[in-house]
Amino acid sequence: MLTLRTSPASPFGRKVRIAAAELGLEGRIAIERADTGDPADSLRRQNPLGKIPVLLLEDGQAIFDSRVIVEYLDGLAGGGRLIPAELAPRIRALTLQSLADGVADAAILQVYESRMRESAERSAKWVAYQAEKTTRALTALEARPPAARQVDVGAIAIACALGYLDLRFAGEWRSAHPKLVAWLDGFAAAVPAFAATAFAG
Amino acid sequence: MLTLRTSPASPFGRKVRIAAAELGLEGRIAIERADTGDPADSLRRQNPLGKIPVLLLEDGQAIFDSRVIVEYLDGLAGGGRLIPAELAPRIRALTLQSLADGVADAAILQVYESRMRESAERSAKWVAYQAEKTTRALTALEARPPAARQVDVGAIAIACALGYLDLRFAGEWRSAHPKLVAWLDGFAAAVPAFAATAFAG
Repeated sequence: MLTLRTSPASPFGRKVRIAAAELGLEGRIAIERADTGDPADSLRRQNPLGKIPVLLLEDGQAIFDSRVIVEYLDGLAGGGRLIPAELAPRIRALTLQSLADGVADAAILQVYESRMRESAERSAKWVAYQAEKTTRALTALEARPPAARQVDVGAIAIACALGYLDLRFAGEWRSAHPKLVAWLDGFAAAVPAFAATAFAG
Repeated sequence: MLTLRTSPASPFGRKVRIAAAELGLEGRIAIERADTGDPADSLRRQNPLGKIPVLLLEDGQAIFDSRVIVEYLDGLAGGGRLIPAELAPRIRALTLQSLADGVADAAILQVYESRMRESAERSAKWVAYQAEKTTRALTALEARPPAARQVDVGAIAIACALGYLDLRFAGEWRSAHPKLVAWLDGFAAAVPAFAATAFAG
């Protein structure tokens, strides 16, 4: 049995859970909640960065971050399933994942701004700097959404980033990005694990 | 000709440049400086996140982030050179890279704390939270340094993260981590591109 240390709201943990389901590996992975804010949580021994998700193998080896975990699971399932094996499409899918993860990272930094700081320590300039990354990325994705019915690591990562924006920013992104909304609806219809891993907050 | 958008102090740009040199691809890559702080820099059209490094192909396709670029270059060079092809060692090398990149990310967030905020907006708690990530990661690496003469994506990433700590935190990490210092000395002796890409600040 593998163990995934994560938390329900994490977009990166969600990416791994969806990948596991798509690869038919769900039954081999126990989910164990981790608290990134608790110094006593064994998470910080498993991943010195104290970040989630982390995948623990039976011999105790810890694999992180989410990108490496997805690659490991894809390999366990035979390879080339969610990450294309051929170089050109592989790099396109991985760059899309990188863009999506960057959107989630920028969103998380905005959430942390209020969660981890006193109000006087908050910087409108920093928050705007992060928000602009999301805005530019969504504009680029709206102009050229992922292919319909594309279920690979790039598409999964985009869906999880958009789901995180829904969770933390009340879906504000939706009104200005109708093509991306339509793409996400199609993705959700094709990938049951997307709805199954939704966190209501 | 490929074009790498980066800046001399970036640990992630350095990782790509060292990888390119080790793979014998240096002559195929033009380095073009990018300014992440300049909204008019074409960087933000190449990577909506506005982050460096970005690799531009001749047809204009942009590849990011540094992990994806290194994987692309490794593939161009035949594959399995800096990123092992076999699953188990591949995942170990990629997890080591993830740890190293997390150290660099935590260090950059500490640098940004003073660069991008008014002094009243700075949070000692946030800076300590990031610094502790570095401390825990270095403790783990000191207990089990990378193998001597190991030159793969994990080792390159560790070297670049340590180089960034040297640049921005005056090598404070060195006194408490003698094994890691010895490892870095060995790495630098084996990989001429490490010294060649050093940035004096």
